[in-house]
Amino acid sequence: MLEARVRSIFEKARFVGEVGIKLIKVSEGTVETELSVRDSFRQQHGFIHAGVIATMGDHTAGGAARTVTGEKDVITIEFKINFLRPAKANKLTCVGKVIRGGKQIVIAEAEIFDEEGKLVAKLTETLAVIEPRE
Amino acid sequence: MLEARVRSIFEKARFVGEVGIKLIKVSEGTVETELSVRDSFRQQHGFIHAGVIATMGDHTAGGAARTVTGEKDVITIEFKINFLRPAKANKLTCVGKVIRGGKQIVIAEAEIFDEEGKLVAKLTETLAVIEPRE
Amino acid sequence: MLEARVRSIFEKARFVGEVGIKLIKVSEGTVETELSVRDSFRQQHGFIHAGVIATMGDHTAGGAARTVTGEKDVITIEFKINFLRPAKANKLTCVGKVIRGGKQIVIAEAEIFDEEGKLVAKLTETLAVIEPRE
Amino acid sequence: MLEARVRSIFEKARFVGEVGIKLIKVSEGTVETELSVRDSFRQQHGFIHAGVIATMGDHTAGGAARTVTGEKDVITIEFKINFLRPAKANKLTCVGKVIRGGKQIVIAEAEIFDEEGKLVAKLTETLAVIEPRE
Repeated sequence: MLEARVRSIFEKARFVGEVGIKLIKVSEGTVETELSVRDSFRQQHGFIHAGVIATMGDHTAGGAARTVTGEKDVITIEFKINFLRPAKANKLTCVGKVIRGGKQIVIAEAEIFDEEGKLVAKLTETLAVIEPRE
Repeated sequence: MLEARVRSIFEKARFVGEVGIKLIKVSEGTVETELSVRDSFRQQHGFIHAGVIATMGDHTAGGAARTVTGEKDVITIEFKINFLRPAKANKLTCVGKVIRGGKQIVIAEAEIFDEEGKLVAKLTETLAVIEPRE
Repeated sequence: MLEARVRSIFEKARFVGEVGIKLIKVSEGTVETELSVRDSFRQQHGFIHAGVIATMGDHTAGGAARTVTGEKDVITIEFKINFLRPAKANKLTCVGKVIRGGKQIVIAEAEIFDEEGKLVAKLTETLAVIEPRE
Repeated sequence: MLEARVRSIFEKARFVGEVGIKLIKVSEGTVETELSVRDSFRQQHGFIHAGVIATMGDHTAGGAARTVTGEKDVITIEFKINFLRPAKANKLTCVGKVIRGGKQIVIAEAEIFDEEGKLVAKLTETLAVIEPRE
């Protein structure tokens, strides 16, 4: 059930599919994703573009939030992301976690790791709980 | 000169090219970009994905920062973005502006507008000034 | 009316009174405040402590948000603040502005200036609209 | 040694002393503080003012950062704080941790807890490493 809900968010978000972010694991309050880095993701210094990492962090945190809102859906109000080290990885892993659920607002975090398990970025996100739309 | 510097950032960042973010105007401390919205950018509610908007805001703010650092380059340390209204536009415009230049740190903002000129998102970004790498 | 609502927020927030933040001007969507800097506000480098500036920015942005919510009250969900230059001023002025009003969420900004009119800090804040409590 | 460095930051920051934030524990990369809540800290809803919590979080995160910079000092460039639940506590505890050290930039977090151990706020902070000033 939980997994179906989160999977639906990933399938409907075609941009996330185009970038290639894959859903790996879902449990209550936590979602894990993975991304094979394409050459075109690297920006002028050879590092993975902030936009790719932010997209991964936002969607994974949003997926985690979706596990605690039952039939309701979520939408990102704002996020903040810190880039802790230049990311040169071929693969990124992201773990999203709810740090505070609520009826109207959910706060979630996402940590993005390279292949060596080093933390490359950390995101904090505020989401609004909304009525589901088909 | 200024324009060449910023254009180079846009050309080397292939992800930005793939998404389709186009450099429109460059002046000291300010950069303007444009994006034709593809259907695949829309997420599960039909709104443009937060990751697309964040990528546009980050790269445009970074471009603005690059206009005030002479021969030096810039790299994003962190940003925060607020999504003010669901974005359903076919075209987005983004204006990036430096609010504080410095030898080591630059602070820039980016505002993202829809076709009606409504503000859909606002980003604040901290960049480090770094040695250029070829 | 507007001014009475905002003034009430300032009077009930005793910490703001203790710090000495004074309400100067109120109009729809905008609030201005002022603060005489005491010696004890200066931290280890002689600059005004980030906490003082953040308190001023948060409360002024919150005051601005309160001007657009009618009978409803507001509460800070999160804020982000950038410190643009070390603040050595004897007096700070702060202008808070709503950048997006809404029934459940208000987004406001606050800019903090020194006596020379230089921007020393900028804050972006998300507030929830809540039922008033007596 | 570590503790002396951090204690010095707390002693020189008179605002932090006035608010009553006390240094409890120091180790490499981590600092813990405590605050007895005064009635005047409560804002219009009876909850502890965002400014008090932000001051505690900022200074504690800054203290943690100071443990990893040797002879160098630190100064806050920016922070973001989420308020997860209204804080009605009589005592707050704060744990600050470095999540990424560096020669020029340090990233730290602070978590603020009430007496029941509930997380009431979480802050992420970017600091610049600077020359010490006497």
